[in-house]
Amino acid sequence: MQSDVAVLGLGQMGSALASAFLRAGYRVTVWNRTAAKATPLVAEGATAAATAAEAQRSAPVVVACVLDYPALTEILDMPDGILVNLTSGSPEQAREMATRGVRYLDGGIMTTPPGVGDERSMILYSGDQKAFAETEKLLSALAEPINLGADPGLAALYDTALLGIMWATLTGWLHASALVTADGATAAHFTPLATRWLGPIAGFISTYASQVDAGSYPGSDATIDVHLATLNHLVHASDVRKIDSTLPRLLHDYARRAVEAGHGADGWARIVELLRAKA
Amino acid sequence: MQSDVAVLGLGQMGSALASAFLRAGYRVTVWNRTAAKATPLVAEGATAAATAAEAQRSAPVVVACVLDYPALTEILDMPDGILVNLTSGSPEQAREMATRGVRYLDGGIMTTPPGVGDERSMILYSGDQKAFAETEKLLSALAEPINLGADPGLAALYDTALLGIMWATLTGWLHASALVTADGATAAHFTPLATRWLGPIAGFISTYASQVDAGSYPGSDATIDVHLATLNHLVHASDVRKIDSTLPRLLHDYARRAVEAGHGADGWARIVELLRAKA
Repeated sequence: MQSDVAVLGLGQMGSALASAFLRAGYRVTVWNRTAAKATPLVAEGATAAATAAEAQRSAPVVVACVLDYPALTEILDMPDGILVNLTSGSPEQAREMATRGVRYLDGGIMTTPPGVGDERSMILYSGDQKAFAETEKLLSALAEPINLGADPGLAALYDTALLGIMWATLTGWLHASALVTADGATAAHFTPLATRWLGPIAGFISTYASQVDAGSYPGSDATIDVHLATLNHLVHASDVRKIDSTLPRLLHDYARRAVEAGHGADGWARIVELLRAKA
Repeated sequence: MQSDVAVLGLGQMGSALASAFLRAGYRVTVWNRTAAKATPLVAEGATAAATAAEAQRSAPVVVACVLDYPALTEILDMPDGILVNLTSGSPEQAREMATRGVRYLDGGIMTTPPGVGDERSMILYSGDQKAFAETEKLLSALAEPINLGADPGLAALYDTALLGIMWATLTGWLHASALVTADGATAAHFTPLATRWLGPIAGFISTYASQVDAGSYPGSDATIDVHLATLNHLVHASDVRKIDSTLPRLLHDYARRAVEAGHGADGWARIVELLRAKA
């Protein structure tokens, strides 16, 4: 084989992946539907394949990062080798892809293209455990590889779940910024306190994880009763400043429902039971 | 005066405050409506005052942590001295309290009672700047004092805003935990990745703060168009697992509205404009 790894799909992310492999000294074949995208990578030392099939025969490991799973299915043509699929998709799509007769690893990239190649970044993998062991060193060129085990759907599920935390946190912070800037403060003044505050929040989360697994939610640090009282301040502060209070009201509603169900003396982790019971 | 500081209100938090002052070597007077709450603190070396008025005359600095602002107004009887009010309330209540003829500092305690006395914890203060300068050393016995300036309402506003981030993040994490545990993973396995992921999220927030102040939201790391596509995965993953998708749908809705308004190429910080325009 002429290369160590082939990269299918050279959008912003695929190009960053190929480039990180090249910088780590690997021989890389690249392919993209629109061939022009390969040009800057060829300048960096990559070999451009004429067809997707040719690329998949050029290396023992194929890394795919294309538009979506159907786009990958269309070009998939691997007689052997390991497919590492970093295309965004659902756990169900990943599990289906694992049945197509290739040695299959699914992955979720937990960084933006500029973060690829940085060892502080992480990429989640799950699927064929022997394939992971054989490719771990190669994949380390992209980010720290985090192995989630044999279920090929778990990387996509964790990816989605972690992004959900990101959107919730970013939006909570934007709401907080809307509040404080309404009274003349700047986001730049407020934000260092907000990012510092994520430290204690991480501590609460670590404490609550075992509560979620145990199904027991002692309110020893702060009870939902207390949270509900202070959530009233948040809703009120939003209303007074004519700021959208949909997010605070949603959080308030979870607390109110937990209290009404008789769980006011429990801690916030109890809310997971409301989330599991679809509204 | 017989004491360095008087503490009004000996609930869980007020007792923790008095205890931290005692451990730091200060002479402390304590008072609580139900006198029995003073007993353990007297055993630690505090002096119990017979009345709230007597407590307020016993020390140059009075720290109040009572049920709410009306409860404090009822007992307020300070001929002079500095009032440090750590009672939970709204910015409007704090600003009103500052007009009552005492030297006034309002504060927001960003920790639970066991975190009081730990220098890694923080307490936010705003109000009389000369009073802050005179009490900063004393207040350092409770947590790191963070001075937010002369507006007495700002400590309560920042407190509420930071708690809003906490509830959003905790609930995003609980939703994520509901997702992954539905597929057989444990919260204990998922959570170390979630808390590590708060690091990059803090990085995004730091980048976006100046965008919020500038009113300009370049989508150079990830566009709302891209977020919207991956938010579909989150909503879908919740629905498939019969998990409450109210929070994902709310986040999805903000992204959709931003895209429909022609801001799909902007970054997530653009959502602050939707929050400022009350729905």
